[in-house]
Amino acid sequence: MATVATTHFADRLAETVERKRSQLVVGLDPRLDLLPVELRGEAHTGREAAAEACARFSRGLVDAVSPYVVAVKPQVAFFEALGADGIRALEDVCAYARAAGLQVIADGKRGDIGSTARAYAAAFLEKEEGREPLADALTVNPYLGRDALEPFLAACRRDGAGIFCVVKTSNAGGAEIQDLVLSDGRHVWEQVAELVAECGEDLLGEGGLSAVGAVIGATHPRAVGIARKLLPHAILLLPGVGAQGATPADVARAFTSGPASALVNVSRDVIYAFRVSGMDWRSAAAAEAASYARSVWAVSGW
Amino acid sequence: MATVATTHFADRLAETVERKRSQLVVGLDPRLDLLPVELRGEAHTGREAAAEACARFSRGLVDAVSPYVVAVKPQVAFFEALGADGIRALEDVCAYARAAGLQVIADGKRGDIGSTARAYAAAFLEKEEGREPLADALTVNPYLGRDALEPFLAACRRDGAGIFCVVKTSNAGGAEIQDLVLSDGRHVWEQVAELVAECGEDLLGEGGLSAVGAVIGATHPRAVGIARKLLPHAILLLPGVGAQGATPADVARAFTSGPASALVNVSRDVIYAFRVSGMDWRSAAAAEAASYARSVWAVSGW
Repeated sequence: MATVATTHFADRLAETVERKRSQLVVGLDPRLDLLPVELRGEAHTGREAAAEACARFSRGLVDAVSPYVVAVKPQVAFFEALGADGIRALEDVCAYARAAGLQVIADGKRGDIGSTARAYAAAFLEKEEGREPLADALTVNPYLGRDALEPFLAACRRDGAGIFCVVKTSNAGGAEIQDLVLSDGRHVWEQVAELVAECGEDLLGEGGLSAVGAVIGATHPRAVGIARKLLPHAILLLPGVGAQGATPADVARAFTSGPASALVNVSRDVIYAFRVSGMDWRSAAAAEAASYARSVWAVSGW
Repeated sequence: MATVATTHFADRLAETVERKRSQLVVGLDPRLDLLPVELRGEAHTGREAAAEACARFSRGLVDAVSPYVVAVKPQVAFFEALGADGIRALEDVCAYARAAGLQVIADGKRGDIGSTARAYAAAFLEKEEGREPLADALTVNPYLGRDALEPFLAACRRDGAGIFCVVKTSNAGGAEIQDLVLSDGRHVWEQVAELVAECGEDLLGEGGLSAVGAVIGATHPRAVGIARKLLPHAILLLPGVGAQGATPADVARAFTSGPASALVNVSRDVIYAFRVSGMDWRSAAAAEAASYARSVWAVSGW
């Protein structure tokens, strides 16, 4: 049997971006109380039925948005809230999205030290005999420092995985820690960005982008520009567009390192579009995804 | 049916500490490659068998150490690495430990914003109709700021839960972020500690301790003393004793706010004691737990 070469995460992603002319990622945040009525069905009877409803919703979204997006970003918390049944649904949804040719970015914001960090890398990113990894990439929290990131970097090296380090978040409260001013005048998040840049330096793909990316809230357009300079090789994952108030124009400067050098994540505005438009939930999600993908591609300047 | 009052996490814990004369927490970190041979059994055949082996090991440890500890701290990553089967095992182990009268501190270091943080609070801490919460308390990562902590604080208020915010970690690399010096001369972690203290101020139990605790690496004895002053009402959860090099004496000053004002976590030195001593794994764990509990109680000065 031929061995399939493990391609670099950034190269896989860049190929998809250029082929689809899209830098859009859709967040899969299945919330029981917001699901289409037709899917809720027996979801109130227990976790197994609720998890199955979330899986059906997520698979339907994958079908609807896959022409317009490069990746989906399942939010692990919404699956985890349904216990083991929820994690079974997450496994199912991730496999479904990968089979549809999408990259899967698991949004777990995991972070711990030593053998614990290794276990998280195994849970999300590592190939096992006879089992593909759950996701192509994982969001991680850098507060515990570089040695805590090392097991994830090892998965990037060995398994062609990617990580996105949380650097500057889209919420207001993030500033309480991230915008603290250091003795040299920089913000904490800028120092975190430099650490992330260093971690990613020896993990560049053939296209020059690193397997180590960064999460930068699109709600802070000025920070997006600074982050682009501090992290010239990183793929910037930009949440906050749509329901949180940022627009595609706010993130234009993120794309100066190449068409795949930034990804815009939209969750609620796409997946719950039916609640506003009254259309079929799949058609509404497809229409919003197509529209966001076009707007982002236009502002990216590629 | 009588309604059972939801007691405050810190009061439940303090009652157990004083009754057992112990401030010891044992970490449940089931690693397949380290399990007793007799438990490994069919674990190599797949995740279901592996998860069952981890659950058997963890339940056996609960039986062995429960006379000597106030809480167990299952490390979520080791269960998550086994997918949905692992999470089923985690649910089983947490229920088993609670039935044995122990507090359960889920070590997940979760952290995210808005509805995502609410989903994590639901996953670990909230009561549902007909279902007890998975754990009594959860470790959380504060890098995303106060609004990201709010859903966990709500679970403390409403469900009698506790949280332990990661403030100063026991690994060397944590210093790269946590020990950065701010413009006013303090370290980042000290500012995080103040934020945590503020979050916990209105969540004091009858004994004066807060439901909002802090994780402070016992490998930094000086930081333990500073943290005690910055967080007078917080329960300090102190990892790093044993395999990571700290001793009970290193954490003595953590206990000045009361016998239950600090908890010492030991994982490997207790649960894998059989690998050193050659004793039965349960007897070895019980002996180490008894010994650590005595040493910690002695240095605590109560």
